[in-house]
Amino acid sequence: MSKASSNTGFGTRARANGARLVNKDGSFNVHKTGRKFAERFNLYHWFLNMSWPKFVLVIFTGYVIINFVFACLYMAAGFESLQGTVMRTPVQKFLSAMYFSAQTFTTVGYGRVNPVGHASNIIAGCEALIGLMGFAIMTGLIYGRFSRPRAKVMFSASAIFAPYREITGLMFRMANGRDSQMSDVSVTVIVAMNEEKDGKTIKRFYPLKLEIDKIFFFATTWTVVHPILDDSPLKGLKEADLEDRDIEILVQVSGYDDTFAQIVNDRTSYKWHEIEWNVKFKPIFTTNNQGEPMVKLEELSKTYQV
Amino acid sequence: MSKASSNTGFGTRARANGARLVNKDGSFNVHKTGRKFAERFNLYHWFLNMSWPKFVLVIFTGYVIINFVFACLYMAAGFESLQGTVMRTPVQKFLSAMYFSAQTFTTVGYGRVNPVGHASNIIAGCEALIGLMGFAIMTGLIYGRFSRPRAKVMFSASAIFAPYREITGLMFRMANGRDSQMSDVSVTVIVAMNEEKDGKTIKRFYPLKLEIDKIFFFATTWTVVHPILDDSPLKGLKEADLEDRDIEILVQVSGYDDTFAQIVNDRTSYKWHEIEWNVKFKPIFTTNNQGEPMVKLEELSKTYQV
Amino acid sequence: MSKASSNTGFGTRARANGARLVNKDGSFNVHKTGRKFAERFNLYHWFLNMSWPKFVLVIFTGYVIINFVFACLYMAAGFESLQGTVMRTPVQKFLSAMYFSAQTFTTVGYGRVNPVGHASNIIAGCEALIGLMGFAIMTGLIYGRFSRPRAKVMFSASAIFAPYREITGLMFRMANGRDSQMSDVSVTVIVAMNEEKDGKTIKRFYPLKLEIDKIFFFATTWTVVHPILDDSPLKGLKEADLEDRDIEILVQVSGYDDTFAQIVNDRTSYKWHEIEWNVKFKPIFTTNNQGEPMVKLEELSKTYQV
Amino acid sequence: MSKASSNTGFGTRARANGARLVNKDGSFNVHKTGRKFAERFNLYHWFLNMSWPKFVLVIFTGYVIINFVFACLYMAAGFESLQGTVMRTPVQKFLSAMYFSAQTFTTVGYGRVNPVGHASNIIAGCEALIGLMGFAIMTGLIYGRFSRPRAKVMFSASAIFAPYREITGLMFRMANGRDSQMSDVSVTVIVAMNEEKDGKTIKRFYPLKLEIDKIFFFATTWTVVHPILDDSPLKGLKEADLEDRDIEILVQVSGYDDTFAQIVNDRTSYKWHEIEWNVKFKPIFTTNNQGEPMVKLEELSKTYQV
Repeated sequence: MSKASSNTGFGTRARANGARLVNKDGSFNVHKTGRKFAERFNLYHWFLNMSWPKFVLVIFTGYVIINFVFACLYMAAGFESLQGTVMRTPVQKFLSAMYFSAQTFTTVGYGRVNPVGHASNIIAGCEALIGLMGFAIMTGLIYGRFSRPRAKVMFSASAIFAPYREITGLMFRMANGRDSQMSDVSVTVIVAMNEEKDGKTIKRFYPLKLEIDKIFFFATTWTVVHPILDDSPLKGLKEADLEDRDIEILVQVSGYDDTFAQIVNDRTSYKWHEIEWNVKFKPIFTTNNQGEPMVKLEELSKTYQV
Repeated sequence: MSKASSNTGFGTRARANGARLVNKDGSFNVHKTGRKFAERFNLYHWFLNMSWPKFVLVIFTGYVIINFVFACLYMAAGFESLQGTVMRTPVQKFLSAMYFSAQTFTTVGYGRVNPVGHASNIIAGCEALIGLMGFAIMTGLIYGRFSRPRAKVMFSASAIFAPYREITGLMFRMANGRDSQMSDVSVTVIVAMNEEKDGKTIKRFYPLKLEIDKIFFFATTWTVVHPILDDSPLKGLKEADLEDRDIEILVQVSGYDDTFAQIVNDRTSYKWHEIEWNVKFKPIFTTNNQGEPMVKLEELSKTYQV
Repeated sequence: MSKASSNTGFGTRARANGARLVNKDGSFNVHKTGRKFAERFNLYHWFLNMSWPKFVLVIFTGYVIINFVFACLYMAAGFESLQGTVMRTPVQKFLSAMYFSAQTFTTVGYGRVNPVGHASNIIAGCEALIGLMGFAIMTGLIYGRFSRPRAKVMFSASAIFAPYREITGLMFRMANGRDSQMSDVSVTVIVAMNEEKDGKTIKRFYPLKLEIDKIFFFATTWTVVHPILDDSPLKGLKEADLEDRDIEILVQVSGYDDTFAQIVNDRTSYKWHEIEWNVKFKPIFTTNNQGEPMVKLEELSKTYQV
Repeated sequence: MSKASSNTGFGTRARANGARLVNKDGSFNVHKTGRKFAERFNLYHWFLNMSWPKFVLVIFTGYVIINFVFACLYMAAGFESLQGTVMRTPVQKFLSAMYFSAQTFTTVGYGRVNPVGHASNIIAGCEALIGLMGFAIMTGLIYGRFSRPRAKVMFSASAIFAPYREITGLMFRMANGRDSQMSDVSVTVIVAMNEEKDGKTIKRFYPLKLEIDKIFFFATTWTVVHPILDDSPLKGLKEADLEDRDIEILVQVSGYDDTFAQIVNDRTSYKWHEIEWNVKFKPIFTTNNQGEPMVKLEELSKTYQV
């Protein structure tokens, strides 16, 4: 039996209740309380992590709200200080002020409607600056979204126990989901399992020794193999034990991405019900019509009975 | 007794006068003289490190000053070369020139007021370009503020001497204050203490051996432990010795942050009066109603008497 | 015979059909199927990797299309709601709407033509915002193109088998094609060759031991040398064997670039027909008229018969 | 005698003519020929490395040229297609077209002067887009200039041979010239010296073993010391030998900068005439009035006779 690792960062007190430690998307399934909203919330990260449709919606909504607020300010400064409008009713006047606000905020400034009094000129001057600042922020956010270094490693849906040489191996398969080039890619695999100690159930973590834990080029696919030798913490486990011991396989991949020129990380985990027995991964490496190497990623998770 | 380390970067000549070496925010408490303002001052870092309210204030103030300066230039070029104004008194005319300047600088350009002479056209052309450059700078500054990679490690307010297995350990606790994922986190702890040598008091630095100095995932909290074994520089120290020897515990944390895809650092230090005796950290790792792991960060610094 | 390496990331199943594994530009010659367009396609990387002329063309084309679409919207909202136009025929009116759209999208907003109705004001307000967003995206793309860290290592056109001390060495020569400074540069060389195993042809990979695999400063040129000792996988190979065994030399260079302050990578490969026998590289390191070191990069690939 | 290092990247063929290999600013003193201008020239790096005054001058000059070119285009399209001008003479008309161009390029668009014909509308639409693109480029350049990670290590003007414990040491002193925090700083020192081999003078490189080659915190100053032990390549050298052997001490410093969250490098070199004998560095580490550590950087290079 190999030695338990105490440096996973989850701590041995992690309870034995079946909740996973690492989500399929690689985030840690740990909740934190006790930070104030202002401490916890980071506007930049919030914008960075939202979907594009939501991002556009937030921008448009903010735009409408800002124009509404400034329209109120222009009305308060006196509608007559906006020269050149052709509107008559209060609602029309307010909408007209909103249109003028939009023209100022975006710095279009057609000028048919334009400020003549001191108040409206000052408000407009401030709005134009705020517009530029808002736009500067938007530029930064959009660039941040674009350029954020992120790996997109595709993992097989299941880990498997498969025949490996004379013995058995725990395996999973992965591929680079991007067209960018990754090199010097290494992987760390840790198994989390419940154990009895002094009558209490505690969580133990064991690093799994891998056949290969680093490759030069992540060009095709990589089937990561943990051979179940005598010193493996998985030695002797039966299929039913996986659930009993609430087993979770934690995976971290790290490599250099050419496009970003940075080290990028990705994580996933396989909970006991995502581990299959007595299957093998279907080969997906072949050649195309021109005789060039080709990988069929659609079959990355395909297995067959042995 | 372990060997003193001479590679901390503080030097053995650091005096024994009670001033801390590393501030609580992680900056070095070292003053430097002899650099010219231009060498020392970095506009970008100055803008990067100021608070958001101050940042906005500086931007607005600069905007007003620029408009004031350009209003002077337009007045010098002759007010009549700005066509379309309706102002009469000198003050009104100057304000009108300021409004026009704001419209030009922000590139709103309503156009009711517009330049007709050569001088005013050239000034306006320069101002618009300067406005664009100023805006380019602002965009860069705002993006720099947003995207600057920075760890936000929360440290317990005190380090403690607590029972550890059969012996005593020096401990402190920390957590990732962000919602981002950190991995491959390592910590370095050095103790600075006064010693007598040839009748003079000098400062010595000793690295402290840690039970665990690197963890894979910084998902929950990490209680860093230095077991006080026979070779520990803290071996045999009594509570009163901490002040006598002007002890300071220097801490540096370094890890890979997923959001920034970069290594981020954080530092702190515990001065002798920030070290508690005979207490233990209250457990703060628990599960929430859904049975998922939860950390109560509000109790990160909570201890209890033993 | 040295041990085959199984951690190249290409897998031993790579077929023996003559297609190269790594392209001359350093990308992997591996095709992938099975990802949806949306998974595979990354707008940012697409823009990042296209040539500058194509980039400008795409921007201009997108600009014309957007103006066409918005001109349709303005026409749908009623041409009379655009005040100030002097056009008469339908085509002229449409073109006039396109001009107005361009003035709105770029936020020029001359204002002779300007929106008066609610519909046209709302469309114009949206267009100006979209223009700003489009511009924010363009700014990000252009900065991304500029600032992307990329090595530009120049490799000799051929690798050569040349006399090296008492024996023979496989060599190639490289230089930093940029004026920026690179330091701590390391190189990895792997040979891919076909072998017979159980009657089948499989691809084997062997790392090649280098005379020097890391240099401090990449200031001039670097002739990378693999001495063909007894344990070299190339030992005993004849010129005809290179083609028979479909030999490919895979090269990866990695170093710290001062300008980007990041590690940058470059790769290339030498296929059997890009390997020369019995030649030597012509010396290209000399001094200029001022007696300062000078490298003639135009002769980087120059060899002479021995 | 220690072994010569062949992995400095300068090559043993470097001639013995007194030109330095590394400039005081850290760049390599190596000239390269044979690259085409387009290969060699990188617009981004050119803009990144020029001084701020030159940068502003280039921007303004480009602005004037662009306006001149577009003024020609507007004149070619017919001056009457620019409505609203009040100019009469040809020169005045051309200047008026330049002002209009400036208003379009910066997207100010006052609108008093505005395009009415198809040609002028199309030119103006293109110019506004080009203006936005130019501005996007400028934003990227300015941000690139601001945010470029660069160390600013201050080195003592001379290296010195000074008494060190019982023997002699080669020393130089350095400090972090920025207010930012650097940690995990390491230094590499190599000596380049001429040697006779087979009657020819060749350049040899020897790494120098340092008393300390890495420090945790680069908080104050660091006096780097190479003790001249029996295996030192400098052992037995007399003052006159430094010039005879054309000695140059190459220095590279590398460390993690908190502000940039990246590894930054700096280099310098000491040529034989920049090495002093029998002096010591004056202590510059002291405490200020509040008893806090203080470093007098103005005396970084100060030495005194021994």
